[in-house]
Amino acid sequence: MSQPVPEQVGLLEGLRSTPSRRYLSDTPIPDDLLWELLDTAIRGPSGGNRQRWAWLVVTDPSVKTRIADWYRQGWDAAYGVRREELSDPGRSGVDTGLTPSSYRATEYLAQHLGEAPVFVVPVLRDAADSTDKRLGSSIYGAVQQLLLAARAHGIGGVLTSLYLGAEDRVDALLGLPDDAATMGLVPLGYPARGRWSQPRRRPVEEVVHWERWGETRTRD
Amino acid sequence: MSQPVPEQVGLLEGLRSTPSRRYLSDTPIPDDLLWELLDTAIRGPSGGNRQRWAWLVVTDPSVKTRIADWYRQGWDAAYGVRREELSDPGRSGVDTGLTPSSYRATEYLAQHLGEAPVFVVPVLRDAADSTDKRLGSSIYGAVQQLLLAARAHGIGGVLTSLYLGAEDRVDALLGLPDDAATMGLVPLGYPARGRWSQPRRRPVEEVVHWERWGETRTRD
Repeated sequence: MSQPVPEQVGLLEGLRSTPSRRYLSDTPIPDDLLWELLDTAIRGPSGGNRQRWAWLVVTDPSVKTRIADWYRQGWDAAYGVRREELSDPGRSGVDTGLTPSSYRATEYLAQHLGEAPVFVVPVLRDAADSTDKRLGSSIYGAVQQLLLAARAHGIGGVLTSLYLGAEDRVDALLGLPDDAATMGLVPLGYPARGRWSQPRRRPVEEVVHWERWGETRTRD
Repeated sequence: MSQPVPEQVGLLEGLRSTPSRRYLSDTPIPDDLLWELLDTAIRGPSGGNRQRWAWLVVTDPSVKTRIADWYRQGWDAAYGVRREELSDPGRSGVDTGLTPSSYRATEYLAQHLGEAPVFVVPVLRDAADSTDKRLGSSIYGAVQQLLLAARAHGIGGVLTSLYLGAEDRVDALLGLPDDAATMGLVPLGYPARGRWSQPRRRPVEEVVHWERWGETRTRD
């Protein structure tokens, strides 16, 4: 297992080379390292410093397995039914944004989620009945901090939501209070394959508008 | 203006020392640097790589001034009415999470927002009528990437929402399509005071639950 020395990764380098990692080995992550990742996550933004969040860490194989079963069902319903179409190597991926190789990675994760040594579940209080589309403005920044801190230690992960078809069962399994809501699921693990490459995106010129909507510019 | 050499900031160091910065000078940010910050932001997560986002950059003083006026009104309504109470140096800040010094910084920003050289407005398409509390799962991670990339270049900012009392007027001013929604407002600028210190948070042991809600542990 090659783990880069954390301080060797520069901030800008890390920001540009932390793709979602879905091929995760079952190598355990030490507890003291998990504490450090979580302590770094909560240095992310918190509107009004209210910190109405909680972070559930799941390492128990029986709990992970149950969630992984529900996750696979969610994946089957959302993507599995489109396997032939989405995994076709001749497809460009432009239509959904999901390339054939990212489809295969997503399929792998759906079939192996329970092998990831750790699930982190970010939770918000007073959120169960919320219809506020901006509710996650703080916690998703903190989740990104978690993924970037993990990357500094050679650990990969991805924020995913395909367990939500079984949201009530997940909430019950984890013992969530009635007012709380899970905001996602983050499997973490040492990558079994792949690399820290720059995520492919549409050119920045296409998504940046200057002064007013529709006013795009060429980047010199 | 002292600007650290970007690559000198390590990833973990940056993640632990990027507080919201609200005292921003009016020193301009070069366009090529803005492009780089935005290009780094969009390397953040994008669920299914759909990238249903856009990034509005506002530097026009007349547009900034109008938004700043609405912002100040929003701040007055939310916090200004509680000035005497919230700015009392004898108050602990435990009740709202907002310490007296962070109250003063928030007040400063409300009174000087228009002086920040750049506003970045993250936008989501197909979002205007959304009631999905998890809608921001990708874009807020990208906003955190923006703030961290800015920090690597010595530029500060904060994700704020106090303009939302005038949301319709802001949307019209920026020419937003009907289906789109602003997900926040990020003023950026070189800090006029303050420093890159670690944000103060509740101890991590209080917000982390192991295996099941309510099962807290002591960090050794």
